[in-house]
Parts: sequence; structure tokens; C-alpha cells
Amino acid sequence: MLDPFLLRPMLEAAINIVDHTDALIRDRYEMDFTHRKKADRSVVTDIDLAVEEYVRNEIARRFPEHGVIGEEMGSSHPDRRLQWVIDPIDGTMSLRHRIPLFGTLLALLDGERPVVGVVSLPMIGERAWAARDLGAFVNGERSRLNDVAEGDIVDEIIAIGERRQFTAVDREAHFDELIRAHPGVRVYCDCFGHMLAFRGSVGAMIDYGLRIWDLAPSRLIIEEAGGVFEIVGEHDGDGATRYDVILGKPTVVRWIKAQLAI
Amino acid sequence: MLDPFLLRPMLEAAINIVDHTDALIRDRYEMDFTHRKKADRSVVTDIDLAVEEYVRNEIARRFPEHGVIGEEMGSSHPDRRLQWVIDPIDGTMSLRHRIPLFGTLLALLDGERPVVGVVSLPMIGERAWAARDLGAFVNGERSRLNDVAEGDIVDEIIAIGERRQFTAVDREAHFDELIRAHPGVRVYCDCFGHMLAFRGSVGAMIDYGLRIWDLAPSRLIIEEAGGVFEIVGEHDGDGATRYDVILGKPTVVRWIKAQLAI
Repeated sequence: MLDPFLLRPMLEAAINIVDHTDALIRDRYEMDFTHRKKADRSVVTDIDLAVEEYVRNEIARRFPEHGVIGEEMGSSHPDRRLQWVIDPIDGTMSLRHRIPLFGTLLALLDGERPVVGVVSLPMIGERAWAARDLGAFVNGERSRLNDVAEGDIVDEIIAIGERRQFTAVDREAHFDELIRAHPGVRVYCDCFGHMLAFRGSVGAMIDYGLRIWDLAPSRLIIEEAGGVFEIVGEHDGDGATRYDVILGKPTVVRWIKAQLAI
Repeated sequence: MLDPFLLRPMLEAAINIVDHTDALIRDRYEMDFTHRKKADRSVVTDIDLAVEEYVRNEIARRFPEHGVIGEEMGSSHPDRRLQWVIDPIDGTMSLRHRIPLFGTLLALLDGERPVVGVVSLPMIGERAWAARDLGAFVNGERSRLNDVAEGDIVDEIIAIGERRQFTAVDREAHFDELIRAHPGVRVYCDCFGHMLAFRGSVGAMIDYGLRIWDLAPSRLIIEEAGGVFEIVGEHDGDGATRYDVILGKPTVVRWIKAQLAI
């Protein structure tokens, strides 16, 4: 386990890198950009590629001994204990349609444990970060989730990924059951829903079929904010494991699991 | 029918008023504010009340001969042909939970026809406005929707209100059918979904159980942008008519109606 004091410079490096990618994204958002469908029918734009290239170069320059796993450009140094994981644009569908609720995700894994994490949504100016045992911060302020009483769950908002994510892992029944069980379920997919969970604006986020780069920063940030992160499903195949996750206030996460009998 | 040239100063007044309410909302958003449940179980905060009071005072000062209908404070001069309609905070549930996707709606009705409309989301800096026959503008630029080919509808995003809005008018079957029929349906309720429709980021917005102040600006803005606005249901009772609406690109609105057999 890394000493927390060794994590601080790595957290600062991650924040500094994301300062630059946020500026890059804001510059290019107003311009035309190309997109194409990948083999799995998801979309990639040239902004995704430019962001990942910048982050990889910065990691290689600052931490040449660390490994890197990126959504678009694969792995380097996969044998190292410390691995940076990058999702250059989480919410590429939103970016493509000029819906400003997408962001960049960056985390450092120590083995399987995330120890640094940053989530930044440049178009709405929201950012969260955490380092293991050093706390979680949202828009510069320490985030400490207040749990809710069971009787107040009805007044919470619950964020959920798109139904197609649930279909892709044969779990659309979970989507349909939850949206019937609670009046305030909103499809706030990708990192926007996660961000709302980090600061307690939603009681929980339920998001299925994620890759490691989609979930690593969220796992750390929600735990450091006093919330819970649970993997409720794992799916192999297609090269990398997909995970079904629920994160948020402990009572709300527990309530969702009870509703879905998982 | 008012001469379009007479509308320009009224549009400018509406924009100027919303400049002030945006600033008021941004100032108060970070502070604590109180909320309470209204008789219909919806929520009102002291920000809603402060915004509506400011707008009413400004309308009375600038256009003393016009009527005013506000969500929170009722009607004045209901006999006049020209009526301003105000929703001080559209998305009070979002405001209360610090989800930044709420906004202020202001429109001028000439009889039943909206002739000026402004929709402003202060926390994400998005604003749309239109005047009858003078065009629609989103974030300062003229908005002209590109319709899509029928075969490309699958790649669109479709915005939908919360399921409880459909339940309230006994139409949850429409919510459930649409969310099954299209993979990209997202619950982007209130004015955020409307804003995405104005600029073509979503193919359409489907929103049920609206009052006149929820729909008046959108009707004008989407029509001036070259889209369509359709009322697909009306419900009386509870003091004021509620309307079920679909707005957006013509082909997508038509496709949704066909899916729902309405």
C-alpha cells in the first residue's frame, strides 16, 4: 500500500493534466469534429483521441515507470503495479450530440485498488477528485455524503445509465423494475450521473456494463466521500470484463439492491 | 396580430429581465435556501418566489397595461389580450437537489399564441429565445434544425420527462413504450430537455402534464427554429389545463407519435 503522502503529488499531477484536457476539449467543442463507429458500435471522435494522446504523453513524461490503460489506445507496461487508467471522453454520444454532460476520467490503480481519481466535466465546469485516505473533493470543497433515512428515499433522485447498457448485459429487467419502483429515476448516464452521486445530488447512480476506466475514479471518490460502491454483476468476453455497479448513499444503494433482489 | 417590429423591444425586455434573474439565481444557488411542498406535492423554494416577484415587478413597471400569469403567484389583469407567462424555476426538484439543469421561462402570449419566449438555464449558461417571425436563437446564434432521415432516428437521443409526470395523467404506458422502442431515450426533464430540442441535440422532447407557463416559450422557439410542436393530450381539473406535448425535428416527432399510436 502506498503511503498517502506519496499520493499527493500524483493527485496534483492528475489534476494538472485534466486542467489541460479540459481546455483542449472546450477549444475543440465549438468546432466541427469527426466521429466514427468502433467495432463494438460505440462512437469515437477525434477529440477522444487527442485527449488520450495528451494524457498518455504526460503520464509517460512524469511517471515513466508507471503503466497506462486507455480506452482508445490500449495498454503500455501492463506488468507494473501502478497503472493509470484513462477514459478520455466518458459520454462520447453526448459530445457528438453537443449535450454538455460528458467528461474525462483519470485514475491511478495500485494493483486493483484505485488510489487517485479525477472526474472532470469541462462544459459545465464540474470536477471531483480524491486520493486514498485523503478525502474526496467536489468543485474544490470536501464532500461528505449525508445518508438518508429509509422513509426519505422517495424524495431522492436516482440516476441510471441508458437502457441499452442494461440490454447489452441482459439486465434490462433491472432498468425496468427500478424505473417503476421509484418516481425520481432519471437517465443521467455516464460521468454526469456519477458526479451527482459524489455530491449527494442523487441518492445513487446505477450503471451497468462498465469497463475498468469507467469505474475506477468513481469507486475511490464515492468511498472517500463516505458513500458505498458495489459491483453487483460481472460479465466476461469482448476482451475486457464489464461490471455492473451501484454507488451512492448507503441506505439508497441498499434499497435499490432490495428492489432488484440482488 | 402584432407587427414583428413591435415585438423586438418586448423580446429585448424579456432578455434583460432574465439577465437579472439569472444573476439572482446564481448568487443564491450556493447559499442555503428553504423549500416546502405545495398543495399538489410539488416543491417551491424561496428562490422561485424571489424570481417571480422580480419578474412581475419588472413587467408591471415596463408594460403596466399587460397581464401576467405566474406559476407561484397567480394572475393579474387576466382580461388583457397580451399576457406574460412566467415559470420562475422550471425544475425546482433539480434546484433543490443542486442538479444544475433547471431554468427560468418567460413568454408573451397574444391571445393563445406565444409571440416572445425566453428559456434560460443559469447554472450551465445556456439560453434560447425567439420572437414570432423573427427567428429562434440559442446561445446567441440563429438555430435552424436539420431534420433527420427516418433511418437515422436510431442514432438520435430522445429526451423525456420523469415517469411520474406520465403517471399523473394516466399515460405511463407512453413512457414505458417509448423507452422500449428507442435505445437512446434519456430522462432529461424540464427545460433542459426542451433546450436540447431547440438546438437539435435531441431529436425530440416528449413531456406530459405541462401547464401553460411550462410550454409557451418552447412552442414559439421550436417553431421558429423550424421544428414542430404538437399537443397530443389535454387534461382538465386542478384549476388549470395540463398539456402533453412533443417537440422537435419533424421526422422524429412523427416517429414517436406512430410508436405510441397517437
